[in-house]
This record gives sequence, structure tokens and C-alpha cells, in this order.
Amino acid sequence: MKKHNFSAGPSILPPEVLLKASQAIVDYNNSGLSIIEISHRSKDFVDVMENARALALELLGLEGKGYKALFLQGGASTQFLMVAMNLLEKRAGYLNTGAWSTKAIKEAKKLDDIYEVASSADANFNYIPKGFDVPSDYDYLHCTSNNTIFGTQLKQIPQVDIPLVCDMSSDIYSRNIDYSKFDLIYAGAQKNMGPAGTTLVIVKEDILGKVSRDIPSIMDYKLHIKSGSMLNTPPVFAVYTSMLTLEWLKAKGGVAAIEKENEKKASLMYSEIDLNPLFKGFAAKEDRSMMNATFNLTNDNLKETFETMLVEAGISGVNGHRSVGGYRASMYNALPLESVKALVEVMSELESKA
Amino acid sequence: MKKHNFSAGPSILPPEVLLKASQAIVDYNNSGLSIIEISHRSKDFVDVMENARALALELLGLEGKGYKALFLQGGASTQFLMVAMNLLEKRAGYLNTGAWSTKAIKEAKKLDDIYEVASSADANFNYIPKGFDVPSDYDYLHCTSNNTIFGTQLKQIPQVDIPLVCDMSSDIYSRNIDYSKFDLIYAGAQKNMGPAGTTLVIVKEDILGKVSRDIPSIMDYKLHIKSGSMLNTPPVFAVYTSMLTLEWLKAKGGVAAIEKENEKKASLMYSEIDLNPLFKGFAAKEDRSMMNATFNLTNDNLKETFETMLVEAGISGVNGHRSVGGYRASMYNALPLESVKALVEVMSELESKA
Repeated sequence: MKKHNFSAGPSILPPEVLLKASQAIVDYNNSGLSIIEISHRSKDFVDVMENARALALELLGLEGKGYKALFLQGGASTQFLMVAMNLLEKRAGYLNTGAWSTKAIKEAKKLDDIYEVASSADANFNYIPKGFDVPSDYDYLHCTSNNTIFGTQLKQIPQVDIPLVCDMSSDIYSRNIDYSKFDLIYAGAQKNMGPAGTTLVIVKEDILGKVSRDIPSIMDYKLHIKSGSMLNTPPVFAVYTSMLTLEWLKAKGGVAAIEKENEKKASLMYSEIDLNPLFKGFAAKEDRSMMNATFNLTNDNLKETFETMLVEAGISGVNGHRSVGGYRASMYNALPLESVKALVEVMSELESKA
Repeated sequence: MKKHNFSAGPSILPPEVLLKASQAIVDYNNSGLSIIEISHRSKDFVDVMENARALALELLGLEGKGYKALFLQGGASTQFLMVAMNLLEKRAGYLNTGAWSTKAIKEAKKLDDIYEVASSADANFNYIPKGFDVPSDYDYLHCTSNNTIFGTQLKQIPQVDIPLVCDMSSDIYSRNIDYSKFDLIYAGAQKNMGPAGTTLVIVKEDILGKVSRDIPSIMDYKLHIKSGSMLNTPPVFAVYTSMLTLEWLKAKGGVAAIEKENEKKASLMYSEIDLNPLFKGFAAKEDRSMMNATFNLTNDNLKETFETMLVEAGISGVNGHRSVGGYRASMYNALPLESVKALVEVMSELESKA
């Protein structure tokens, strides 16, 4: 039985992507070789990398606007360091909206001066701070567009005159915003884009080359750009599967089309949370994430019954993060509406039983 | 037609590993979910990671000897930096045997003082320097066990009283040496261990924690060890496929058994290079690599004929690196003897034609 996969990441991928990826492991395009046992310098793989890089920009409406796309390794956690190494000269501003922002701040602080422009740590990050000021002589402002753990999402893109850097790991390609407001976007692939093992970095070239430090080669965006995202052997399978997922998204009509589906899923989910007296949402309503709905039972005695019903319905991966507790329904691009319907049905069945 | 795959890396993997990896992409162990769409914190994947880490040590005879195995991201190129960040306090020695050693030296130099204890750059790295001295107050000695580009291999493990660090990317698990002479071993997976996208690091814990710098979290071996190689989301597919390859090696009888096969393949290959007047080996005979045989045609006019014959015989990936030219036959663990026989046959056929 195929399950309803609400996993927070690594997370659900389209079945047709999984099937193609699986076939390429055995024989890539009738070449007699697997995609994972050919040279990354072969035409076959260079084509994959170039196609993935082009699609990454095209689907965000960023082609021809001075941006380059890179498929790197090391996750967003490596980007916490890399962003600071490439952009931090004197002082940067960070908006602290959760566990990932906090980590990004910690790593950047090891290199230089960091100022928290605002934080919602006072309320266990259940909202997004608004109305903060960012001095115009800062090197950049760093924000996190979606907070998987807490289920909040940045709805207003900060208006600043300095480079704007954003960790979009958990909502890139899910909504139709003006991506050109950002100068550097990074995202671990394992939510909306592909399997774990590669990190997309999209950077406007003109913000680079302005720091005085001697950047280690493997941390230097300029060197990665110069080598066509092949400064060293890339994570072949993760890049290939990301390319397939981006092709799938394009065929569906791109970000504008998937946004409509995501809105439908989120709306159904949050309606149930709000109307069912047995459940209570965690995040402030105006900051609710379209990707991750966090909620708790209002009566903990129902925990066992509810969780048994979830298992029986084939619903997987809805346990909340330990720092919030309760439940989290991650509704990434590849999750079908019917999975949300299945979850909502279990929730409403619980209500009729209780 | 399945090809004879001599690719230098990413390179050939055992067919049974490819098949299992391919199945797990569609449905992992009848769970109804793909291995790449489940949480890395799920029992299913934690078991994979722990099994891979244990096998990595066991196959090198390093269990219970104070070592930890990590499956990281970023390739050997990231290790060039990470080794220095974790171990370099004042000065370290580097043995320069090729392009990868040269890069390792360059990156470490950005952090502190590096001394080249010996180099074979004078002869385009066609031999391994011997009889060098390493001061006993250095932080560590770094060497490269096998040089894919030049086809040389370190036969004598340097005898030093300081920590010995080795880049074994292209010959780990291929030969039966005393791995406990090393204190830190690192290896990109994409030769003998798995697909591109993960890097094995094996480190003796007691050499860590001795530098004064504030190591960035993602670069800190101690933090990776503490989190069970899951400081951040690991490259799930690459770790899983590496585990399958290590299981395959164990079932074959381990490193001692594969060494015998590798010796047979290399011996057949080098015999042909030495006995066939149309070919000439590149590396000094006593330093020849069992993994990568580098050779040139003695008469360049035969190039086209030879290369056409290679294609017709289904032989793939034998082009030499641009810095050496000619040909390179990479004979990693998964390459069957019959593939070497097929190549040798083409070489000897060329002789009979010429």
C-alpha cells in the first residue's frame, strides 16, 4: 500500500520522478551504463547539470537577470557558513524566526559581527516579527522564508537596499512570489526539489567578490560558478533527481500552478484545525505556513486513539518536532490533495467518536 | 549491451548493488515508501546509517580501536579544508604526489603553515617520493594513497610518530594494508565505495579537540561524531548505496579477497602494457597503481584506429586525464576481470594489425 507521506523532509516526491530515477540507476537512457557510474564530465551528465541549473532559474522567473544557479553539497547548514564567508565583511543583519535562523546566526557570528534585527524567540517562534529596521550600511540581511518546525512562513518580503539573502529550504518552488527581490537564495533539495544530498544556491553575481578574506576554494561561490557547478565531483544522483522534479513542476505549469494546489491543500487543512474543537493550531494565523501545518490535540487523552487511526489510514510522518510537540502535516509540492483529505477525514472521524 | 566501464570516477558499481538501489527508490523494504522520501531520523534510515558506519570500520579491521566512521558531504575537496581546520595548530607536513595533494596543500595553507616534506612535481608526478624526513613536532603528516590522474600508488605507509592523515579516495577497500597505521582516513565514495555524494571520514577520536580555533559547526568532526553522522540531513541515497556496496564487499570475503582479484586485473593490464611495443606505461614501475593504469601509444598515428576498436568492443571511460594524456584504465573493485581481458585483447589485436 502506497502511504500518505507527510514527512517533513526528506519528503514525498512525485511517483513519476521516483520511477525515472529508479530506471536511470540501472540503465541511463539506454546507454548500457547507470547514471551513477559515468563520469560527471561526460556529455550525458554535463547535460543533466546544465538542464537542472537552467530550470532552477527559469521556474523562479530569474533567467537573464544576472543570477547563477549552483547545485552544491553540504545542506543549508553549510550555507550558514558559506554565506558569511562570501558576503560578511563588517556586519550583517539576521531575522530570527526559528531553529534554522538561530543556527545561521551562530555560524556567521564565528566569522564576524551579526545583529539580530528582530526575533520571535519570546513566543517559541510561533509568529514572524514585523516592522523591524535594517541599517543600510549592513553587508546583507538574512531571513528564512519558511520555518518547518514551527509552521510559520514569511508572507512579506523585507524591503531593503542591501543584499537580501534567504534560506528557502522548505518552501522554494511552492509559491508565486517575486524571487528577483532576493540576491541570494539557498535551499536543501529534500523538500520541494529532490532527494537529500544537494543544495541549490541561486546568487546574483554582482554581490560577490566584495569581501577581503581569502575564501577557501570549496566555500567560494565565484569558483563554483566559474566551474559550472563542477568544482569537484557533484552529487550526481541528487542533481539528476532534482532535475526530474523540476521538469515535473514545469510540466504541471510551474510555480503559479502548484501554488494554487498548495493553497487548496493548506486551506482544507487549516479549516479542519480551526473548526474541529479537538485541535488547536500552533502558529499565529496570519503567519501560517502553506507547507507545514503545526497543531496539537486539545485533549491529550485522545493521543493514542488518534495515532492508531492515523496508522490505520496509512498516514505517515505527521509527528511534530520535539520543540513544539503535537503534530505537523507537511504538504510539499508532491503531496496530493487526496492525502490531505485522508488526514482531515481521520481528524473529523475522531471528533465524531469523541 | 552492458559496457566495460573503466571510468575513473564516478565509476562502476556491482550490478546487484545497482539493482537493489534501484528497487529502494521505488519501494524500500515493502514499506510503501521510497528510501529517498522518508525521514533520516526514521528507524529505517538510522539503521542504514549505523550499518554503513559499522561496516566501514569492520572491513578495514578498525572496529574497537578508537575510530569513528562518518558519512559526510562535500567530497575530498571539503576534507582538504576540514582536516586543516580540525588538526592544524602550528605546522603540518604534506607529501605532494599529484594534483589532489597539491590542492590539499593549497587549502591548508590558507589556514596556517604547511611544509611539503617531498614532491614528485619535477617529473609530472610519475613516481612516489621516498626517504623523506618529517619533524616530530608537526601537527600531522598528510599523504595521498593513490593518484588517479598519474596512476601511482603509495606502497610504503610512512612511519611517523605524529598523526598520519591519508586521502584514500581512489583505493580504499582495494588492498589489505594495516589501516590502523593511519589516524584519519578520508575518501570520496565514488570509486570503490558507492555513488558520488558522500565522503567517508574515519578518524581516531583521540587526535581531535587539540586546536585552538573556533571550528565552524559543519566542519567540526567532534560534532559530527556526537550526532551519529547526522549533524544535518545526510545524503540518504549515497549512504544507502555505499552500505550496499560494503555489504557486497563483505560477502565477497572482504578486502583480502578483493585484493587478490585486483592484483590479477592489474597484473594482466601491466603485462600487456609492458610486452606490447605499441604501448608505454606512464608511472614508474615500482609505484604503479593497482587501481589506475596510465599508458600512452608509442605511435600516435594509431590513435584513431585504437579508439574505434575500443568503442566497437564496448569499452568505455579509458581516456587519460588531460594533464597526462593517453589512456587510463581504472580497475576499481567492481570491475570484472573479463573487462580487463576485453581491453587487453583490443590492445593485442592492435599489435597484430599494426
